[in-house]
Amino acid sequence: MATMKDVAREAGVSLGTVSRVINHATGIKPATLEKVKQAIEKLNYVPDQYARGLKLQHSYTVALVLPSIWNPFNAEFAYHVEHELSKHDYKMLVCDYDDDPQRELAYIQMVKENKIDAIIAITYGDLEKYINSELPFISIDRYYKESVSYVASENYKGGRMAAEELLKHGAKHPAYIGSYNRFPNDTMKRFDGFKDVLEEEGLPLWAIHELEPVADFKPLLMDLLDKHPQIDAFFCNTDTLLYDVNEWLHERGLRVPEDIQLIGYDGMRLDNSHRIPISTIAQPLEQMAKEAVKLALAKIADPNMPARAVYLPVTYLEGTTTKKISQKNVKALDKKTES
Amino acid sequence: MATMKDVAREAGVSLGTVSRVINHATGIKPATLEKVKQAIEKLNYVPDQYARGLKLQHSYTVALVLPSIWNPFNAEFAYHVEHELSKHDYKMLVCDYDDDPQRELAYIQMVKENKIDAIIAITYGDLEKYINSELPFISIDRYYKESVSYVASENYKGGRMAAEELLKHGAKHPAYIGSYNRFPNDTMKRFDGFKDVLEEEGLPLWAIHELEPVADFKPLLMDLLDKHPQIDAFFCNTDTLLYDVNEWLHERGLRVPEDIQLIGYDGMRLDNSHRIPISTIAQPLEQMAKEAVKLALAKIADPNMPARAVYLPVTYLEGTTTKKISQKNVKALDKKTES
Repeated sequence: MATMKDVAREAGVSLGTVSRVINHATGIKPATLEKVKQAIEKLNYVPDQYARGLKLQHSYTVALVLPSIWNPFNAEFAYHVEHELSKHDYKMLVCDYDDDPQRELAYIQMVKENKIDAIIAITYGDLEKYINSELPFISIDRYYKESVSYVASENYKGGRMAAEELLKHGAKHPAYIGSYNRFPNDTMKRFDGFKDVLEEEGLPLWAIHELEPVADFKPLLMDLLDKHPQIDAFFCNTDTLLYDVNEWLHERGLRVPEDIQLIGYDGMRLDNSHRIPISTIAQPLEQMAKEAVKLALAKIADPNMPARAVYLPVTYLEGTTTKKISQKNVKALDKKTES
Repeated sequence: MATMKDVAREAGVSLGTVSRVINHATGIKPATLEKVKQAIEKLNYVPDQYARGLKLQHSYTVALVLPSIWNPFNAEFAYHVEHELSKHDYKMLVCDYDDDPQRELAYIQMVKENKIDAIIAITYGDLEKYINSELPFISIDRYYKESVSYVASENYKGGRMAAEELLKHGAKHPAYIGSYNRFPNDTMKRFDGFKDVLEEEGLPLWAIHELEPVADFKPLLMDLLDKHPQIDAFFCNTDTLLYDVNEWLHERGLRVPEDIQLIGYDGMRLDNSHRIPISTIAQPLEQMAKEAVKLALAKIADPNMPARAVYLPVTYLEGTTTKKISQKNVKALDKKTES
């Protein structure tokens, strides 16, 4: 493997000059720039080795900024991010911002002070004006602007899948329950996907689709069930919400899945070896973590890297909150979908 | 608030000298040491301000080293540690060592290189020879030596509590299932506590008490049940093991809690607002995190701080894996205990 020293020797320049070129510093003579670039090419000194060469300017630390590590979904994501980072000898700082945007901003400041190299963030705060294409910032599930890279699961497809699975499982009147943030966010597409399938099927859209923060979903759920007792299924837009809905239905004397079927979203697991046996649309968390780390390291290596959006496929996981599937329903739906 | 500069001015010495005194450097003239100490006292320059004065030597980062963040128990602990650290403007690095002792050692090395200020560790590896009284290392649930501070729940009492609760809930023949590490560890006392209660009650001790790693508990459980079909309850030494046992019993056609009652240990929760409704001995995780951070910061502020052991009380949480309690059983047990 060629080192930065090899490049300096080959180009006949100092190590500092190579470092400045790699670092995209300004004020380098065009001729010098050319010599260094040629040496890099000749020696096949690959971009992802750049970071290694700049020890003094890097902390080898990436911050994972999230609402709360105390949530199985986030903990699993953190697990995979940490493992992926450690393969590249990077450390992971965890920032639990717990609805305090000041804490999110503090980490953005740390990047600017070179205390950390990049941020991977699951974030819902008002950060729009602080995030720009220069910042090594990888967003999860939230689109900021074209110049900011992000990774998300196929939320729209997931919403469609939830509706389709409920219908396949025999539901006649599936409804939606979930919340959305005032800052546009990819997870909203779960609702869109669900809605579109119902429209295509000519079914009415009964939904609890509330702006966050939602003080209490329970009375809303009770109201909806009073108004539309035909409802026999819910797509809950997160697995933790499914947990709550399940409890509230039991309190109302409704059985899951006999009276009401439930499908969640996330596919959260208790830990590495224990699934939580609910029916859910599972996000590919390990893959999402790997893609996020890959983007973060690429951005550290090359600050001018153009932003990329990565969408990863979701899968349906069968659990105990849906009925045994009936082939009749599946065929009827497949037929409709084909036509 | 007095600053280090004030102390230097008052003592008539350089800032570096004050820093060396605070840092317990050797080779300082006794007269100089005395002057600085007097200035500190006069200005009421308090010890917990020491760390703040030594910006160049501190990273304001504490590493949390644990087997896996992808476990609700560890995730909850991390959540509380991060919150507690952030109150003191410290950041938290998470190291998921995943049974690779090299990764644990790498963090000990980072402390020595001043890249991190302290370690809080849930660790089972062979680290004995690397841990000493100079290292700002706070151990959770594991006793290394007198000179290393550690925080644990009252494991022995928890083991007793599990046995007593099973008996109160009507169990006639409670058994034990769990594993232990080859490096002595405080969690082993759970077994001791359980065993002592059974002995006091004149009951036989049927136990699966295996050295880690345990390839598969299931055949061991099946064997024990074949040999002792009288077993009507288990104390599982962790909540995740309870999860597995519950599943294996179902496969065997045994109902929980009707045929076999289960009590776990940990009190893990799904997240901030969702309990997992199993019967369990709950560790006071928030308090444990606060104590661990307190010890870590105190050790950073004063490297000569003597080690302390902190034991925190456990509580029994009633869930769905035990029967409704019978007052008759409670009274019988209380009577026995009194006599």
